[in-house]
Amino acid sequence: MKKNYAKLSLALHKKLHGKISISTKTKIDDREDLAVVYTPGVGAVSSAIAKDERLADVMTWRKNAVAIVSDGSAVLGLGNIGAAAALPVMEGKSAIFKRFTNIDAVPLVLATQDTDEIVRIVQALEPSFGAIQLEDISAPRCFEIEERLSKSLKIPVMHDDQHGTAIVVLGGILNAMKVTKRNIKASVKIVVNGAGAAGVAIAKLLLAAGFKHVVVCDRKGAIYAGRPGMNPSKVALASITNPEKKSGSLDSVIQGADIFVGVSGPGLLTADMVKSMAPKSIVFGLANPIPEIMPDAAKAAGAAIVASGRSDMPNQLNNALVYPGLFRGMLDKGIKRVDDRIKLRAALALSGFVKKPTAEKIIPSIFDKGLHQAIARSVK
Amino acid sequence: MKKNYAKLSLALHKKLHGKISISTKTKIDDREDLAVVYTPGVGAVSSAIAKDERLADVMTWRKNAVAIVSDGSAVLGLGNIGAAAALPVMEGKSAIFKRFTNIDAVPLVLATQDTDEIVRIVQALEPSFGAIQLEDISAPRCFEIEERLSKSLKIPVMHDDQHGTAIVVLGGILNAMKVTKRNIKASVKIVVNGAGAAGVAIAKLLLAAGFKHVVVCDRKGAIYAGRPGMNPSKVALASITNPEKKSGSLDSVIQGADIFVGVSGPGLLTADMVKSMAPKSIVFGLANPIPEIMPDAAKAAGAAIVASGRSDMPNQLNNALVYPGLFRGMLDKGIKRVDDRIKLRAALALSGFVKKPTAEKIIPSIFDKGLHQAIARSVK
Repeated sequence: MKKNYAKLSLALHKKLHGKISISTKTKIDDREDLAVVYTPGVGAVSSAIAKDERLADVMTWRKNAVAIVSDGSAVLGLGNIGAAAALPVMEGKSAIFKRFTNIDAVPLVLATQDTDEIVRIVQALEPSFGAIQLEDISAPRCFEIEERLSKSLKIPVMHDDQHGTAIVVLGGILNAMKVTKRNIKASVKIVVNGAGAAGVAIAKLLLAAGFKHVVVCDRKGAIYAGRPGMNPSKVALASITNPEKKSGSLDSVIQGADIFVGVSGPGLLTADMVKSMAPKSIVFGLANPIPEIMPDAAKAAGAAIVASGRSDMPNQLNNALVYPGLFRGMLDKGIKRVDDRIKLRAALALSGFVKKPTAEKIIPSIFDKGLHQAIARSVK
Repeated sequence: MKKNYAKLSLALHKKLHGKISISTKTKIDDREDLAVVYTPGVGAVSSAIAKDERLADVMTWRKNAVAIVSDGSAVLGLGNIGAAAALPVMEGKSAIFKRFTNIDAVPLVLATQDTDEIVRIVQALEPSFGAIQLEDISAPRCFEIEERLSKSLKIPVMHDDQHGTAIVVLGGILNAMKVTKRNIKASVKIVVNGAGAAGVAIAKLLLAAGFKHVVVCDRKGAIYAGRPGMNPSKVALASITNPEKKSGSLDSVIQGADIFVGVSGPGLLTADMVKSMAPKSIVFGLANPIPEIMPDAAKAAGAAIVASGRSDMPNQLNNALVYPGLFRGMLDKGIKRVDDRIKLRAALALSGFVKKPTAEKIIPSIFDKGLHQAIARSVK
């Protein structure tokens, strides 16, 4: 199936030369039109904005325009493939923005992976856009870039690999808990495998949501306070997660856990590990395109609920469930910063959209009517 | 009339919230579509480009995408109004690109006027676009920015205020010479008033076209080799223009001149100055919206041919006659650099498009069928 999509996608991209284009909202058929759209008429518009910059939000496209910014350093499952190779992914994001919430998103892939430069570039681009979506920038640089931009810009900035993923995972967990009749967040044990952009953001949002027992593992095993040789973002993560200071590799940490969330790599969760989890376990293997464990194998090993990032399996946890509506809401309501409250509300809107969650349906489909509008409404 | 356009333009911009939007080229109506447009299918496209970056020109929109980059430092007749206020002008340019040659142009207005930063930002944006149009950046910074970018990028970079204007002016002069039966470029005397981006580029292109007697004036009068207190770009200009080293103010330099080209300010050319020019003089007053001399007044003072930048008067010299076709040609033919030969060929295509030039019609209309395609074909 995957091979087929690859072939179809290559053919489509060759034929159409990408997936997006610019359209004009008004006709230019004679000199009169030109004098209104362009000079001399447009001079009055520029003068008005020069006097009151807020008018640019009314008289230009920018209040509906989002820059999708990537340096191509951490693309899908492909890694550091660089700016040009990241462009088709960013165009895909743009097409999804347009299709679901009518946002004009411009893919900007950058020929630099220098943190300071990326920050300066996005700062300089601020007057052109209503919001910034950071995409596929590798950890830990993505944390610093997002933090510096969030502090310095007056428009919202969101690194989707972090927060889009975290919101979708939290939404899925909330419904999976309902289905498996887990009611008390503070007693649920969660292991997050992978300490990149997504893993860190998932752990933080779970804590903000009221979960207490969250352990994050990287390639060296559990992250705990005092573990030698960690970078500053892992030191910070260790200080807020893993209250029992568990150490050791995934196969020991997973024992007795209620929920596994994998944002790591293919095949890293074995059937034996699933068997060692608590009864009615919840297993999200989100590595793309090959999950940490195939859903069938996880079920066979005793998992009650499985989810993946794949469109050909049930319970697809995909950022596109969230970001079109989230940005729609932020643009419409003039939100300046993406905070935990906004993310938690979006996760609740997402999980609440499935009226009767079941093991096979813990998450809406991206095509469900009203989903994106519900996410947008959740933004306050 | 101008007041009216201002009002109409303000109303249009308020109603439509700008003039451009993003469109998708392909439907996203079910999971299959999504798997082709986005993940997992798009992974194959990214992988292919990672192996051979040239495929990005086929499989993404970038070969048809132009960044319109401005820092808002020299906008229309409005001056340094900043990035946000420049945005409606850049959207207008984008709409014109789309309307006439189907180019996807993205307005990027920058919150910096630092030369080094602008250069670095555009360099970093290179993988996203097929060409760069620089707009409304003040002199002399615009010269350095364009030169450094032209040298360092593999895609064409053109500062339209310089070269778009120069090409249109040269095209107009060639036809005005036909009408006034001037055949020998080397004997024609031209005075260019204004030594900003446009004035410098016009002078250089006239020299490249074979004119010998070109004198450029700034606020202090004629620019000549050895004049004290000039910046480096004026020193360079003095070394190639004004072979007779004329000095003095416009009213003395203009005496006996065949052609006046004003890219300066309103009312700077008096009727007496026009009277002092050679018989059958040619007067282009391009200051916007109020020319150096009103066309009627210039004619009354003896000018045989007049042109302005205004859409409500004959012989409108407007950059939009040229840039849509020029970029179309450069994108289609994989041109890497805008050189004099390309500019000269475009000017010839522009003037040649008017089969029988007259005093009232030395230049095509932007709406003439086939004009933009003729300009595009001229690019080689």
